[in-house]
Amino acid sequence: MAKVSEHVLLQFAPLIYVAWADGELTRDEITRIHDQLERVKSAGAETAAVAARWLNPDRPPSASDLQELLKLMRKAAKARSRKNGSRASLLKLGRELAGQKDAEELPSELAALAEVERALALDGTDALHAILGRDEPAGVEQRVTFSSIELNRFLDGERAATRRQLFEIMRNPAFQIDPRLSTPAYRERVLAAVHLLADQGIGATAFPPELGGNGAVARSITAFETLAFGDLSVLVKYGVHFGLFCGSIYQLGTTFHHEEFLPAVMRLELPGCFAMTESGHGSNVREIETTATYDPVSQEFVIHTPRPEARKDYIGNAAQHGRMATVFAQLRIGDEEHGVHAFLVPIRNEKLEALPGVMLEDCGEKTGLHGVDNGRIRFDHVRIPRTNLLNRFADVSEDGTYSSVIANPGRRFFTMLGTLVAGRISIGCASVSVSKTALTIALRYTAQRRQFGPSAAAEVPVLSYLTMQRSLLPHLALTIALDAALEQLVQRFAAGADLREVETDAAGLKAFASTHNLNTLQAAREACGGAGFMQVMRVGQLRADADIFTTFEGANPVLLQLVAKALLGGLREQFGEMRFIGFARYLGARASTAVAELNPLITRKSDPEHLRDPEFHTSALRYREHRLLTTAARRMKSRIDHGTDSFDALNEVQDHVVALAQAHVERSIIEAFDRKLAQCGDPTLLAVLRPLRALAGLHLLERDRAWFLEAGYFEPAKAKALREEVNRLCQELAPHAVSIVDSFGIPDFLA
Amino acid sequence: MAKVSEHVLLQFAPLIYVAWADGELTRDEITRIHDQLERVKSAGAETAAVAARWLNPDRPPSASDLQELLKLMRKAAKARSRKNGSRASLLKLGRELAGQKDAEELPSELAALAEVERALALDGTDALHAILGRDEPAGVEQRVTFSSIELNRFLDGERAATRRQLFEIMRNPAFQIDPRLSTPAYRERVLAAVHLLADQGIGATAFPPELGGNGAVARSITAFETLAFGDLSVLVKYGVHFGLFCGSIYQLGTTFHHEEFLPAVMRLELPGCFAMTESGHGSNVREIETTATYDPVSQEFVIHTPRPEARKDYIGNAAQHGRMATVFAQLRIGDEEHGVHAFLVPIRNEKLEALPGVMLEDCGEKTGLHGVDNGRIRFDHVRIPRTNLLNRFADVSEDGTYSSVIANPGRRFFTMLGTLVAGRISIGCASVSVSKTALTIALRYTAQRRQFGPSAAAEVPVLSYLTMQRSLLPHLALTIALDAALEQLVQRFAAGADLREVETDAAGLKAFASTHNLNTLQAAREACGGAGFMQVMRVGQLRADADIFTTFEGANPVLLQLVAKALLGGLREQFGEMRFIGFARYLGARASTAVAELNPLITRKSDPEHLRDPEFHTSALRYREHRLLTTAARRMKSRIDHGTDSFDALNEVQDHVVALAQAHVERSIIEAFDRKLAQCGDPTLLAVLRPLRALAGLHLLERDRAWFLEAGYFEPAKAKALREEVNRLCQELAPHAVSIVDSFGIPDFLA
Repeated sequence: MAKVSEHVLLQFAPLIYVAWADGELTRDEITRIHDQLERVKSAGAETAAVAARWLNPDRPPSASDLQELLKLMRKAAKARSRKNGSRASLLKLGRELAGQKDAEELPSELAALAEVERALALDGTDALHAILGRDEPAGVEQRVTFSSIELNRFLDGERAATRRQLFEIMRNPAFQIDPRLSTPAYRERVLAAVHLLADQGIGATAFPPELGGNGAVARSITAFETLAFGDLSVLVKYGVHFGLFCGSIYQLGTTFHHEEFLPAVMRLELPGCFAMTESGHGSNVREIETTATYDPVSQEFVIHTPRPEARKDYIGNAAQHGRMATVFAQLRIGDEEHGVHAFLVPIRNEKLEALPGVMLEDCGEKTGLHGVDNGRIRFDHVRIPRTNLLNRFADVSEDGTYSSVIANPGRRFFTMLGTLVAGRISIGCASVSVSKTALTIALRYTAQRRQFGPSAAAEVPVLSYLTMQRSLLPHLALTIALDAALEQLVQRFAAGADLREVETDAAGLKAFASTHNLNTLQAAREACGGAGFMQVMRVGQLRADADIFTTFEGANPVLLQLVAKALLGGLREQFGEMRFIGFARYLGARASTAVAELNPLITRKSDPEHLRDPEFHTSALRYREHRLLTTAARRMKSRIDHGTDSFDALNEVQDHVVALAQAHVERSIIEAFDRKLAQCGDPTLLAVLRPLRALAGLHLLERDRAWFLEAGYFEPAKAKALREEVNRLCQELAPHAVSIVDSFGIPDFLA
Repeated sequence: MAKVSEHVLLQFAPLIYVAWADGELTRDEITRIHDQLERVKSAGAETAAVAARWLNPDRPPSASDLQELLKLMRKAAKARSRKNGSRASLLKLGRELAGQKDAEELPSELAALAEVERALALDGTDALHAILGRDEPAGVEQRVTFSSIELNRFLDGERAATRRQLFEIMRNPAFQIDPRLSTPAYRERVLAAVHLLADQGIGATAFPPELGGNGAVARSITAFETLAFGDLSVLVKYGVHFGLFCGSIYQLGTTFHHEEFLPAVMRLELPGCFAMTESGHGSNVREIETTATYDPVSQEFVIHTPRPEARKDYIGNAAQHGRMATVFAQLRIGDEEHGVHAFLVPIRNEKLEALPGVMLEDCGEKTGLHGVDNGRIRFDHVRIPRTNLLNRFADVSEDGTYSSVIANPGRRFFTMLGTLVAGRISIGCASVSVSKTALTIALRYTAQRRQFGPSAAAEVPVLSYLTMQRSLLPHLALTIALDAALEQLVQRFAAGADLREVETDAAGLKAFASTHNLNTLQAAREACGGAGFMQVMRVGQLRADADIFTTFEGANPVLLQLVAKALLGGLREQFGEMRFIGFARYLGARASTAVAELNPLITRKSDPEHLRDPEFHTSALRYREHRLLTTAARRMKSRIDHGTDSFDALNEVQDHVVALAQAHVERSIIEAFDRKLAQCGDPTLLAVLRPLRALAGLHLLERDRAWFLEAGYFEPAKAKALREEVNRLCQELAPHAVSIVDSFGIPDFLA
């Protein structure tokens, strides 16, 4: 066999290398190249030798042969300053590397080979990169274009001081709890942490100074929201005692209860429960069955569980630590039924033994929140003093005369429940905190974790991949939007805004935020791969604990229907009622509203500037809400007019009214983001906040684009353009992801 | 005040009752009724007395007053056999109850009052129901129209015997493990259960009789699938040892390894690990960094961990029980690199102490699968005999000569990995089992759990609600479809079908099934409300454990991209490679395929018969797959032709290719369901299987209807009709839900 000179070998080296290196060519394909190379007549013995030596399908070159070839080519490329440029034939490249002057022109005898090369698609940029390396780095690297501290200051706003205070407390090792502790040990650790919060006066924040608090409702919710960056069992145990138990005494009780019970309760000397839910009745609170019968002789209420399904169930603090409970029961005086009222019922003595007539049971192991002692309570004719009725809205005199400041029983019931709206707001806020933690963990991880990459180049951060960006960045944008919406709701609530509107928004935002949070946690876990399954990464544990947020303080599907009903009734109805007698009078007004004509220019417009325009998003979201409202009202009204009862009518269009509620919440979230943005004057922050706002809005439109297409609001081409714009926004934001999550300000000991 | 006769009272009783009973009317509205009633001139003193007594906004009737009124009306209705019929004015009803002959005609003096009644929408069916009760029961009650035993026989098919065998074994208390046990105790319990399976010969099922097995590959996967109804730590520990470790020795080794190691391995006397993943490389296996360097002097391989990130990580059995590991490492002989090969490396002695040079570490607590001991392994120049190379596909002679039956290194690598496809199939099957458990629990619960209901009627099962049906029943239909698809894949795999196709389907179905499973578990948990959070309900624990199914045996987004690449390459390419050199030659062929013209009749057709037609679903799903394939090929090809390298080109259209893979999997699932259905001859079963099949197909079309709208394949009206048809199918299937899940045949001790 003829000896092959380096010069000749170099001419064919790129083709040979690519043919073998990546193992993509079949035996047949290599034979084709080989045959063509042998046929190159004028090439002479050397070329034939190259074919025999390097393109013999039965004797492929070894890995080290190929390495040598690669070194040879790179050396030649360096000597001739051949830069990795545009797509080129491998044969041309070879001739260029070999120093052929006419490198740009292939001699005709090589044409057939060039044809093969092209047919096998060996002549692409990949091949050049494989040989010469890639000039520009691939993948997304993180950049710093703004101050995370400034963005944190802007996002947290008035919450900053409370955040700092709580994080300082949470730094205490008492708050670092291993969730795989045995349940008894975990519960004790959690109780100790809540005691620490009580000792620091955190639990009293919301209550007026005369009761030993700070009268700072907003700060109190911020404290809760900040606790949600830590162990969620601590959060929930704290919430049960201070938010629900303490809150119910304050909201539903009067001076007597405040003076008699609150001091010990606020110091956690008298740990308590909020006993509303029964085994048989969760969402449908109005039908609970526990009875409170007044006995005028002894001037006592007799609290009783009439049947097993009427036991109080899933009650936090009931299994172990609670000593008193706010018990919701049907008030009976003689023959009269007065509906659901709240009573303070002692359940355990100081030694934590159950009191006579009180049967306490542990709910047993749960699938999350292992540090919270949920239990069941049954009452066997337990007697409590008349004064233990929490009598802010209704009272029973010594002789058994019932009186109420609210004549209508339905209205009274919902007024009572309405005072507890802070709980729902708080769960929404806590959900946002958990999402922030999940995103902080996942985006830091995916920005540094590298996997795969272009040929002959380093692996790239997995956040470089479009599907990864799409799985995390819209959640990031929505989390920030939600945070703004809840921040503003808390401000309105603290400022005493119309309670009906606050209740509607609280229900909608709680439902949205808790579902959004689970989606975010799942995306975060999967983004972190196997590492995400490790407890130290926290994501899986947070998911297990936060799972129940979609259920407690109101199951999400029920809450969304309440929102829809409030909208259908124009917010004139009392909130929280799922019955509909007389409701049709509101539907009429809604049903007769005209749906705006569509502007064909808008339905087609798809330039990037328009697609990112906040005004386009809010118009679209408003249109959807308005149209869903009008059409839902029409569909329900037409059924009711034809004699269907409202229960069946609602159920037949239930998917429609839930879509309406969802549309309402989403519109309000995006508008809240806009209000927040209007307060920002720092151009470096706006440079990242504007695309985040655009992504939040476009993501919501994209997610429900089927609806907009069905409604004719988007032409198909616009829907496609919208998807592409979401891709572009993701690519644009990816390099800033770590700076953005840094701005959530979560201390290192928590994420 | 005049005394009111029962006769007069009855006339106004319906109006009075509705005005007060449900608390929906405002004070102003009651005043309006009151004023009108007082104005009724001809009615005289008695009517005025009624108004004063019963419609005084300042003195509302008590609850017992209203009860009396209701009793009075119901008695009168009974006496006059007044049936609850269509919508009627309350005044007319009252006159009818009072026995007025001209009940259908209201005297003119009552016209104004009737006007008020209508304006306040008090005259609806709800009001009638509130007073007279509702004739037909509301809500969905379960019916039995077919034999669950027969449906079980049909669905399980050839799997029945293995199911029975495994369930019999799993009845043993050793398999009932409390997941809140401490981690060490849990791990021991799980090990004991796996020992029990080994003792029963279950682990050997797949291996040939000469090695002590049954040679029954399909039965082996069915055994695994059945174990997935139980504790998932047992499943995974069993899978790591028998599927991965034992399987790798069998598939990658030769007679020597089979004879030397398999007997002890199959008896679980030599527990093992499958050490592929490293901290630095999960999905990108080809770049793992552990080295195996051949030393011809001692005729040993030296296994070494060159840097911390090259440690083996998340390895099941490595933290505690594994004594040997199949270690994947880069084979080096002298200067030559031969790529990834598998080696048997002892890691612990009989006392379970780490062997010299082997550093073992516990990964620590995870967020699920607490009974599996995942660990890390580092090697410090650990020497193993030359014969410990698993040498089915490549060998190293005593003098260090490398030889392989597969010349091409890339092909060799993927052939090796391909032998492990059973693991992916098994995880798909296990996901379906978990979904079945979740649906069994959730549908039984929601069929009996009652909450809310129409006015004056019993509460209805929560499965009566459309949103509840929609959250569970499409998952039920898809689970059955997936089960058929995996059953058929297992049969093809066991029958030795083309491995490339099996690998593609396994990757797609594993990704789809594991994601579907998490969605199903979440829907099931939320459907069960607070009860779903209790460990005894299993759903939450299954979710925590099954979470990682989306990641292990291949992260789902990576798997879907591999499916897409296989499709773009027309399945001609070796499976599993994410690099693309030379790939463009396939894209050309794909890109030039014409996309079929749309038939305007089909895009508009929306009658129920058409919408349920299986042929419509498969046509639509095939069209989507074909079009996504063609357009993805075009978009990638155009980028590559313009000099983008394939890495960037793929990443720019990554959402598109993932959608393509998803479309392929969905089409194949629905076709598998059709093939299964074709085997059913029992009309009572077909009566429920056909709507299930329709729901599975329509649900997939509905879920991605945005795509079909964008593509012009659906007109907006059709997309809306499709949603309505999904609603109807849900309503139709809901009464059979419990019978259907009964047919999964899960024993009572498991669900």
